[in-house]
Amino acid sequence: MNGAESLVHTLLACGVDTCFSNPGTSEMHFVAALDRIPGMRCILGLQENTVTGAADGYWRMQDRPACTLLHCGPGLANGLGNLHNARRARSGIVNLVGDQATYHRILDAPLTADTEGFARGVSAWTRTAAHAADVGADCAVAVQAAQAAPGAVATLILPSDTCWDEGGVVGARLPMPRAATVSQEALDAALAALRSGEPTLLLLGGMALRAGPLALAAGIVDRTGARMLSQVSNARMERGQGRASIERVPYPVDQAVAALAGLKHLILIGATAPVGFFAYPNKPGRMQPADCAVHVLARPEHDLADAIERLAAALGATPSTGAPKPLAERVRGAVTPEGFAQTLAALLPDGAIVVDESVSFGRALSPATQGAAPHDWLQLTGGAIGNGIPLATGAAVGAPGRRVVNLQADGSAMYSLQGLWTQAREKLDVTTVILSNRSYAILMGEYRGVGANPGRTALDMMDLANPELDWRLLANGMGVEAARVDTLEAFADVFQQANGRSGPFLIELVI
Amino acid sequence: MNGAESLVHTLLACGVDTCFSNPGTSEMHFVAALDRIPGMRCILGLQENTVTGAADGYWRMQDRPACTLLHCGPGLANGLGNLHNARRARSGIVNLVGDQATYHRILDAPLTADTEGFARGVSAWTRTAAHAADVGADCAVAVQAAQAAPGAVATLILPSDTCWDEGGVVGARLPMPRAATVSQEALDAALAALRSGEPTLLLLGGMALRAGPLALAAGIVDRTGARMLSQVSNARMERGQGRASIERVPYPVDQAVAALAGLKHLILIGATAPVGFFAYPNKPGRMQPADCAVHVLARPEHDLADAIERLAAALGATPSTGAPKPLAERVRGAVTPEGFAQTLAALLPDGAIVVDESVSFGRALSPATQGAAPHDWLQLTGGAIGNGIPLATGAAVGAPGRRVVNLQADGSAMYSLQGLWTQAREKLDVTTVILSNRSYAILMGEYRGVGANPGRTALDMMDLANPELDWRLLANGMGVEAARVDTLEAFADVFQQANGRSGPFLIELVI
Repeated sequence: MNGAESLVHTLLACGVDTCFSNPGTSEMHFVAALDRIPGMRCILGLQENTVTGAADGYWRMQDRPACTLLHCGPGLANGLGNLHNARRARSGIVNLVGDQATYHRILDAPLTADTEGFARGVSAWTRTAAHAADVGADCAVAVQAAQAAPGAVATLILPSDTCWDEGGVVGARLPMPRAATVSQEALDAALAALRSGEPTLLLLGGMALRAGPLALAAGIVDRTGARMLSQVSNARMERGQGRASIERVPYPVDQAVAALAGLKHLILIGATAPVGFFAYPNKPGRMQPADCAVHVLARPEHDLADAIERLAAALGATPSTGAPKPLAERVRGAVTPEGFAQTLAALLPDGAIVVDESVSFGRALSPATQGAAPHDWLQLTGGAIGNGIPLATGAAVGAPGRRVVNLQADGSAMYSLQGLWTQAREKLDVTTVILSNRSYAILMGEYRGVGANPGRTALDMMDLANPELDWRLLANGMGVEAARVDTLEAFADVFQQANGRSGPFLIELVI
Repeated sequence: MNGAESLVHTLLACGVDTCFSNPGTSEMHFVAALDRIPGMRCILGLQENTVTGAADGYWRMQDRPACTLLHCGPGLANGLGNLHNARRARSGIVNLVGDQATYHRILDAPLTADTEGFARGVSAWTRTAAHAADVGADCAVAVQAAQAAPGAVATLILPSDTCWDEGGVVGARLPMPRAATVSQEALDAALAALRSGEPTLLLLGGMALRAGPLALAAGIVDRTGARMLSQVSNARMERGQGRASIERVPYPVDQAVAALAGLKHLILIGATAPVGFFAYPNKPGRMQPADCAVHVLARPEHDLADAIERLAAALGATPSTGAPKPLAERVRGAVTPEGFAQTLAALLPDGAIVVDESVSFGRALSPATQGAAPHDWLQLTGGAIGNGIPLATGAAVGAPGRRVVNLQADGSAMYSLQGLWTQAREKLDVTTVILSNRSYAILMGEYRGVGANPGRTALDMMDLANPELDWRLLANGMGVEAARVDTLEAFADVFQQANGRSGPFLIELVI
């Protein structure tokens, strides 16, 4: 058994059976091992950021890692943007990077790069394999590291000789890391705040946003008069009819400060205290008032469901999902953010997975879709745009039988449009809705925040209309059927048809 | 004057007047400064690897740097692949990266990343600005560092407050770094080898491949009976009628070893001793014989033209471009590598700039095009695929009035197809020839080198035909006109028409 074969056997033994890949020469022994050993589903991406983003989407739906297969330092570099997003989502990924043979590295061949250096900024765990005999054990540690609660990017770099040399040994599956339980002191501090009668907010993130813990948190809110919000950006929220409603901390600084005004206690449950996405002159960086006490009930790596259960038990709270929410009605006519949000809410398929990289156009979506059919909502967690199409691809692989709806800003879509090809190849059930405003619209607002109206140069740098992108052609060119619509009734018709089909479809919604 | 204004004034004062950009929120003050200060040409790219690759192409034609404008660590990360290629090409780039405000970094907002860490692997010089008052001076040093002979990636990271704070001071232009001259000892050693009568090879790279030094090197060859070759991959070669012919060290290891067999002296002039692009079991890493003496006449950072002139003077050699080379004749019928190479050679416009990312299909191109009209040939220098379309974009900006011909493998083209949009927007004179074999063909050969015929999994991982990419649609979707051809006569017709137009055109050549 060579090192590559020991790697594949170890992955399978550790429960990793899906590989998002873009291999090169240095990975050929790994590919050859995949040929010989059945059990691994291999999914090709045509650029590495589609590969890493798909691995993130897979984790978010499966709560267990896929592996990637990337080619040398530059191949890893191409996928760093979405690994950054995965790091912020705390998604687990076994990130495999082939590289120059151990003894060839000193020759500094053209593709030789600082592969470990590129990896460290996005990885909780990084190792370069040294010998074929160790690859299996290295891999088992990587799989364990990727599941360090809640999840992490674990990068294993594989010099090609560690794959082709004989002497491979299958690594034993290591114990699954368990989330830590929160301390009694942390629980007591949160309870004291909730019992204080002072304005108190539960801020939820991570696994606290799954239906069960969320309903119990809503019960605590009902019981105590506290409020609850989620972080601005979340890896996965379970929402819709039958689930407790929760709104997010607003993205704009002024709105976020207003939402938290008057608070005396902020209780963090798998969340971090909200900060501005960027700094702005003469605006605060932290969103809560200066005299607000911050209580860390649970960090993201804690067992959040357990923390909420203990809190609820102490307070005598029970799960609450509130009254049935009003059903949204479709809207006709021109495409407005509110009309689109309502129409989407009315038509979202039961069990849909919404991948939200809607950026500027999507800020009305959250309230309107609370009453949609039950669904999951996946966000851009790290702000590195180009996440949506890859994330939708991986979510569809990770949750077969459910429709994925990717709400996708056009400027961001262009970063990683290659993922559409993988959707066509794998016949994935993804409806991509391109929100086509033909500009970096978010920057127009940001520019005005600088205190001036944009001039010619600035307008040029935010304008995607010269020439216009034609998303029907781009999708068709990668084997994905597509349509363009510019009214809400046309959108509704095409959206329903798209969701009823098997395989991907793209709708360019001109806004 | 704020920091951003001092930055723009300093860039212009230092001769940097072209900015390839993909800005975000943290760069809005820089964009605002560009609005207020005339003189900078700003060119938008829709993904950062098109931005950085274009800056590389610009340098290769101008021998002076453009700047980039990238957004935070992830924006830089998206452009690292082509910065890696630029590093290997020794291209100068003033790589500007906006980032979180200095005081906001500790808040670890979602986009916060290890920006310096990402930069170091590709940059010869990296600095994070600390104060608005220093930004001008920082920028002047960056421009100087980018021109450290021959060129280098100099990354200046600009926290947003260093741009918006007042107190900016324009940086003074610093002296242009001069290439070092080679020592008399190095010259004497090379002369002794050339006079030894033993088999000797001049290996040329960098500026030695421009027409003047190359002709003089050819004169040395004529005079001494030595041979000459260029490196496998070169940033820019001046070739064609009226220029000395030089072949490259072959890419495949066995062919490279054969080309260097029997050598007793290898004289490096701006080149490094050839090594295998990858290691292979039981194949050597170094291509020259074990008993071959390696003489470093000039490293890439030396004044190569001067070194060759001194060598020629000592030997009494004069420039030689050989006899006029036979003109190539167009070929008809099925598309073969040799027929394509001849047809291209016959039709290449005078003064064309060929950007070669032809990968597997292109290995017949070099001999056939020696007799083409005078042209420049730009190669993928770092092996990070996805270089061609961006490089062609930047070369066209850097050499207006000349036709750029991008010979582009389809798999590699998909990495950075977004660059086509910039070509349409800027109406650049680029003819892109997609060599469409619908596979990662190079990997098929590499896989067989592993010792087996590919099985189902391996074939799937190298196959781009399911579904087929339609390059006409992809190009049209970004505003570039396109045609598909599958015979050499059809190619010849369309290629001539394309080269006669103004603006970009894409030809999908089915091979």
